[in-house]
Amino acid sequence: MPRPPLSKDTTLCISLAARPSNIGTRFHNHLYEVLGLDFLYKAFTTTDIAAAIGGVRALGIRGCSVSMPFKQDVLSLVEHVEPSARAIRSVNTIVNDDGVLTASNTDYTAVAKLIEEHGLSPESTVLIHGSGGMASTVATAFRDKGFEHGTVVARNEVTGPGLADRLGYHWRPHLGGACASIIVNVTPVGMAGGPEQHDSPFAPDTIAAADTVFDVVALPAETPLIIAARAAGKRVITGAEVIALQAAEQFERYTGVRPTPEQVAEASAISRM
Amino acid sequence: MPRPPLSKDTTLCISLAARPSNIGTRFHNHLYEVLGLDFLYKAFTTTDIAAAIGGVRALGIRGCSVSMPFKQDVLSLVEHVEPSARAIRSVNTIVNDDGVLTASNTDYTAVAKLIEEHGLSPESTVLIHGSGGMASTVATAFRDKGFEHGTVVARNEVTGPGLADRLGYHWRPHLGGACASIIVNVTPVGMAGGPEQHDSPFAPDTIAAADTVFDVVALPAETPLIIAARAAGKRVITGAEVIALQAAEQFERYTGVRPTPEQVAEASAISRM
Repeated sequence: MPRPPLSKDTTLCISLAARPSNIGTRFHNHLYEVLGLDFLYKAFTTTDIAAAIGGVRALGIRGCSVSMPFKQDVLSLVEHVEPSARAIRSVNTIVNDDGVLTASNTDYTAVAKLIEEHGLSPESTVLIHGSGGMASTVATAFRDKGFEHGTVVARNEVTGPGLADRLGYHWRPHLGGACASIIVNVTPVGMAGGPEQHDSPFAPDTIAAADTVFDVVALPAETPLIIAARAAGKRVITGAEVIALQAAEQFERYTGVRPTPEQVAEASAISRM
Repeated sequence: MPRPPLSKDTTLCISLAARPSNIGTRFHNHLYEVLGLDFLYKAFTTTDIAAAIGGVRALGIRGCSVSMPFKQDVLSLVEHVEPSARAIRSVNTIVNDDGVLTASNTDYTAVAKLIEEHGLSPESTVLIHGSGGMASTVATAFRDKGFEHGTVVARNEVTGPGLADRLGYHWRPHLGGACASIIVNVTPVGMAGGPEQHDSPFAPDTIAAADTVFDVVALPAETPLIIAARAAGKRVITGAEVIALQAAEQFERYTGVRPTPEQVAEASAISRM
């Protein structure tokens, strides 16, 4: 079922980022083809985020994915902010319903869903490594799911304690011998092409003491941490799961159609080629 | 040479109209394919022209074709207005150079070029039938090309004398036995599907007395007026020529590439199917 030829009735979705990549453009357009949807997706950049969002509204652009450095700026430019974006003050998805814009964060909703789907117990202790935007998203999802016993590990002495305080979690600047049932990596350690791509963000003892290992790094899907966790027989949640789920959520919000996990996996693979 | 696959670097051009058609979308996208240009064109509508033009600027949309009812409103929303649009206070083309918008009117420039190409002499008398937006465009092009002896024929007692006065032309409410060397129809008489599609806007005597007959009606290319003029051996200028020339001008302003007359003719035919 190929997508219909481009016409005046084709629905446009876009992304806004300081440095756009082709990943979203390929991902969404591939699924439009597969699902035969009369949609078109293209990445844009801008130096005037207010006018760009005004243009989204005025031109009837249906969906707008938001990346760095606009995730916070757009909060004041939309009519509605969903709880997923409000708590973390970070938007990655805007949906335009006849000129009324609603902002949400599908990274947050994806993490929250994965916590449920993997059956993690809110009684567990959680150790979150990192204090950037995505760490805030992940930690807030855990807190909102009822996890009261958390620790944020981050060298940054502003964002680290700031995030911990907001959630009633502990903060420590270094891992040391810290342990928890659930350990989560939200640092770039293990990321392909990064300076620490062959490293694990947690020591073997910390992995051994955990029952669940969650690595938000998505590329590669099998990071050194995930490989070590699988070898140790731990329950594993990967960054690839987060990305696939958030993309499916975003796609559904824009089009009203939920792609299957297989379709999302294929589109993700193609979009990263 | 097919166009490259859609990517973040694909250049978007759009149109803005209260009631968009598919003609521009088909015309431009067909030529992008033929010429292998990494461009994409889509028609839009809006209820907020200021925010839409702001979006064109902020999103780096390269070109914006403007139709009713926005042709005058956009004058105050751009950085530069070319003489082609300033005199008639009507814009049909906006080009975006790194956030600086320039408005022009390619209907005007196309008519001015046709006056030259067909070798019409400024000494000739001109009879222009009609006083709407396009009649103003055509009459102003004649005046700016040095035609001082003109008459505007229009029943409308506001726009008729208004247009004539602005150009130093005469006005008459009815054709009567009016004659001129160059007679121009800018009314809907002869237009396919219209109530007067089988009629001629000029009487046989008026056609007989002219040496040049110019019909701005483009559909059909061979209107009853054009057929009568050809039969009488007159020099003929058709609305199809105006449309093809203005579209080629617009296309070149957006892309920097001038399509051949044959490519424009083919794209026009396809876009009207």
